[in-house]
Amino acid sequence: MGDAALTCPIPINEYPHVVMAHGGGGRLMNQLIERMFAPSLLASTDEPRHDSAVLNVPGARLAFTTDAFVVRPLFFPGGDIGTLAVNGTVNDLAMSGARPLYLSVSFILEEGLPMETLWRIVQSMQQAAQLANVRIVTGDTKVVDKGKGDGIFITTAGVGVLESPLTIAPEQVRPGDAALLSGDIGRHGITVMATREGLAFESMITSDCAPLAEPALALIDAGVDVHCMRDLTRGGLASALVEIAEEASVRINLDERTIPVNDDVRGACEILGLDPLHVANEGRFVCFVPAAEADRALAVLRSHPLSDSACLIGRVEEAETGIVTMKSMIGASRVVDMLSGEQLPRIC
Amino acid sequence: MGDAALTCPIPINEYPHVVMAHGGGGRLMNQLIERMFAPSLLASTDEPRHDSAVLNVPGARLAFTTDAFVVRPLFFPGGDIGTLAVNGTVNDLAMSGARPLYLSVSFILEEGLPMETLWRIVQSMQQAAQLANVRIVTGDTKVVDKGKGDGIFITTAGVGVLESPLTIAPEQVRPGDAALLSGDIGRHGITVMATREGLAFESMITSDCAPLAEPALALIDAGVDVHCMRDLTRGGLASALVEIAEEASVRINLDERTIPVNDDVRGACEILGLDPLHVANEGRFVCFVPAAEADRALAVLRSHPLSDSACLIGRVEEAETGIVTMKSMIGASRVVDMLSGEQLPRIC
Repeated sequence: MGDAALTCPIPINEYPHVVMAHGGGGRLMNQLIERMFAPSLLASTDEPRHDSAVLNVPGARLAFTTDAFVVRPLFFPGGDIGTLAVNGTVNDLAMSGARPLYLSVSFILEEGLPMETLWRIVQSMQQAAQLANVRIVTGDTKVVDKGKGDGIFITTAGVGVLESPLTIAPEQVRPGDAALLSGDIGRHGITVMATREGLAFESMITSDCAPLAEPALALIDAGVDVHCMRDLTRGGLASALVEIAEEASVRINLDERTIPVNDDVRGACEILGLDPLHVANEGRFVCFVPAAEADRALAVLRSHPLSDSACLIGRVEEAETGIVTMKSMIGASRVVDMLSGEQLPRIC
Repeated sequence: MGDAALTCPIPINEYPHVVMAHGGGGRLMNQLIERMFAPSLLASTDEPRHDSAVLNVPGARLAFTTDAFVVRPLFFPGGDIGTLAVNGTVNDLAMSGARPLYLSVSFILEEGLPMETLWRIVQSMQQAAQLANVRIVTGDTKVVDKGKGDGIFITTAGVGVLESPLTIAPEQVRPGDAALLSGDIGRHGITVMATREGLAFESMITSDCAPLAEPALALIDAGVDVHCMRDLTRGGLASALVEIAEEASVRINLDERTIPVNDDVRGACEILGLDPLHVANEGRFVCFVPAAEADRALAVLRSHPLSDSACLIGRVEEAETGIVTMKSMIGASRVVDMLSGEQLPRIC
């Protein structure tokens, strides 16, 4: 073994190679980030890790974030890799309470990608940026040999401005908070998988891919004391809530009956053996506010078309260590965990 | 043909597919950016396009940039993909006159990448960030199936602060300016290619990969009226100068005898049929200053170890359209152009 193998913070015996689940948004990805990337790379490990970093530059308080997009197939009902790449980064900024302003775009193209495909994706990005009211200001292009990529990968980074003095982050969540969900879950993941596998469901399900800055900022502008917001991407609602519960050291107690799932999505999940709580979304978020402000927050969310079916899904309680529990449809209570493996690879 | 094919700004008949040269830093990449990406994606096409975008956020003037890194092999004498990914983005920020502050890092990992390899690269990035005095504050990880990537691709984005009111950009270059070069050229490209192809040269050439913010900011801090700086990456010195000449509509007249090329690099270029002017660098930059300030600027650069062999390589003259010319070793004058094809794929 080389020196690097001896010091590697991921046990080489257990994981000698990267596996798909290291990118799946569940427990293994969490370990890779917490054990390897964060202690080595992130500037200060005691800063809360959220979807965006807060930058303190002279005269301004900014949010900064990045995401890579490797979704397959490139096009699916309700969006494509280009709309995902714009909205994904817009949403990460919005979840920190920032107004998204600027994006960068890096393309990694595989030799042989049809020029027409690239052009369709570029047009989608242009439209998505207009819709989300962000400006793409810088970019980069690399090409890799045929067989060394997969058509196109896109990485976006974003800068937004934090206009409110609120600190919106997982560790702000506290007992007594209400957990709100902006709409039904699981449509993006089921749509992409159905498209990829050529599954035909009775009615066409479309991705929920959408920019969330407007409803998120509407809450802040309305003066709601927002403690935390998190968009539900890889790993779904379950992963987002478990991460928040662990960072805040609280128990989040859900009521399954209140979590909206489209009938077609529920049916597809039953056929495929998936739990909708683990399925990816690209236009949904959870939000934690003091219980006394829950009704007002819901009214604000429901006035916006992208969150018009927002609902209360649970309550935050005191706990020794972070945990998410859920009262099921039939009244039993169970622990909700992140996936440990990989359920739906390359969903975003 | 679909609608997208009919409106595609790159002629589909001529280029039905992406080719390696679309990422090569030469004429074809330039066309892809100027015809497709810039008009569709960039917020305003009359903004000068430089390595970094200038952000006007409330209270601050910032630079923002991104680059993807796909170099093969991952490790080479003098650096690896991790050091490149940090220094490349640091250098883009520095070339706009910004002090690099914050980086984001996005990994696209191929299933099966040895964990030890990932750890070596992460350690390199940590060291490079320390050396360049930047803080990595946010990141993302995706994993793609075996055979759909190539070990690891890294995309970094960076935010820096513009502390000086100078506008440092290609269109600031004007007749009478002196063109300065920070050191010898071609070492990065030759090193990577020799490593990739298993070529053994008499002495080991190492990459020039280095963070350039210190020498670049030293010029500004010394009060030099810097008109433009540009780091020499893909496409080499030739591409950087042609881009600048075209954007500023000037003639840049070089003297080949003054351009430093290491003897081993020159020998390798002769054997391989390469022009050192087209070979990539990762720790060299050109700088345009008023002729009257050239000596002072050179003195500042030479006092820094990363630019201690800086030299005057040419002068800027009036011209109808942008052009780069060079007086050769034997006194003849020729036009210097970007590469139209691809010379050294995946060099960064």
